This record gives sequence, structure tokens and C-alpha cells, in this order.
Amino acid sequence: MNIDDLKYNEQGLIPAIVQDIDTGKVLMMAWMSRESLALSISTRKATYWSRSRKKLWIKGESSGNYQTVIRILYDCDADTLLVIVKKNGPACHTGSETCFYRELALEGDTTGE
Amino acid sequence: MNIDDLKYNEQGLIPAIVQDIDTGKVLMMAWMSRESLALSISTRKATYWSRSRKKLWIKGESSGNYQTVIRILYDCDADTLLVIVKKNGPACHTGSETCFYRELALEGDTTGE
Repeated sequence: MNIDDLKYNEQGLIPAIVQDIDTGKVLMMAWMSRESLALSISTRKATYWSRSRKKLWIKGESSGNYQTVIRILYDCDADTLLVIVKKNGPACHTGSETCFYRELALEGDTTGE
Repeated sequence: MNIDDLKYNEQGLIPAIVQDIDTGKVLMMAWMSRESLALSISTRKATYWSRSRKKLWIKGESSGNYQTVIRILYDCDADTLLVIVKKNGPACHTGSETCFYRELALEGDTTGE
């Protein structure tokens, strides 16, 4: 698969699910442009497109919490990526290991917020 | 967290990463509307919004490959969901266990396509 043949959305972005190679936990979801994907592949440092700052975002560049890219999978529709990383510190800007640290209450559950 | 307070995109949708409770594998990514999320919570059957068919999509309704919702987490920005499911058959329409069954070649790798 050539990365030009992946399906990017109307903003030229593709969602990237980030999973920890060690724990299997889903750490975060971010977006990649073609350029950030090419950089992730060539540098092996996970690099995203920051939609808020509208610029390339080398994860960990300011925090030191880099993510080393181990594998990049793509789905059956070629419109979503699964990036398996070795993390060098927490994924979340809150300091949490993963961005998914809160949950919804489900019908019949007594836990959850 | 009230599901009305989650951040839906301009189409009223929120991405849902689907992870297998048994294997930890990421199975697929789909989109949920507020209504499909409410149904997933109340029925415990994973229900998405089909962007191609523009209708509610009870996963497994035609294939029998239902997904029972075990937990639903949301991320720090409240704009992405992580749905942990017990699957009743393959997640992918191709018959593959997960939609992520192909990978990109990385710099320095000899594997990948």
C-alpha cells in the first residue's frame, strides 16, 4: 500500500488510533496528514497533524513523551490507521497514561460517572 | 458525563474505537451519533451511524456478528470514544477478526507490503 492510496478526509487527514505495544491499551486518537504519516514512517517518531494548532506535531517534542512507531496498520476501508507505539512517558497531556481514563455509565451498571 | 456534553463533529458524529475485551485487539473504528450512542448504552448492543447508508447500524444485525458493549470510555477532550466489546464473530465485513489486518512498510523494515 502506497500512502498516497489511503483515504484522507476532506481536510486531507486520516484518523490514527494509537495503541501501546507493551500493555495493549489504546492511548489516544490523533489525526495524520500525508506528510505526518510519511514522517512517522521515515523517522519512526509518531508525528501527527494538530488540528487546533494547524501544524505538524511531533508527539513528545515539548513534553519529552515521544512515541516510537513499531507498526502501522490500516483498516479494510483504508481510511483509518492503527499505530502501535512504544511510549516514552504518558500519552495524555493530563499526565495520565492514556487519554481514555473516564467512562460512561451503562444501563444496569452501578459504576461510571 | 452526560452524553449530550460529548463533542460531536459538524455532522453530529463522534468516532468510536472498538476494542475486543478478550484479546485487547483493536477491531474497527466506526462513528456514533448521539442516538446510536444512547442505544448502545441502553441495549448494550453496539450501534453505530453508517455514514455510507446514512442510517443507524446495529452491528451484526444482518451478519449475526453482534458486539456486546462492556465498557465505553471517552478521552480527555471528550471527542472520541473507546468501546470495549465482547464480539460474537468477526468484526470485519471481509470475515477477518479485525478490520486492521494489513500494514504499511516502515523505514528499515523488511516486512509489510
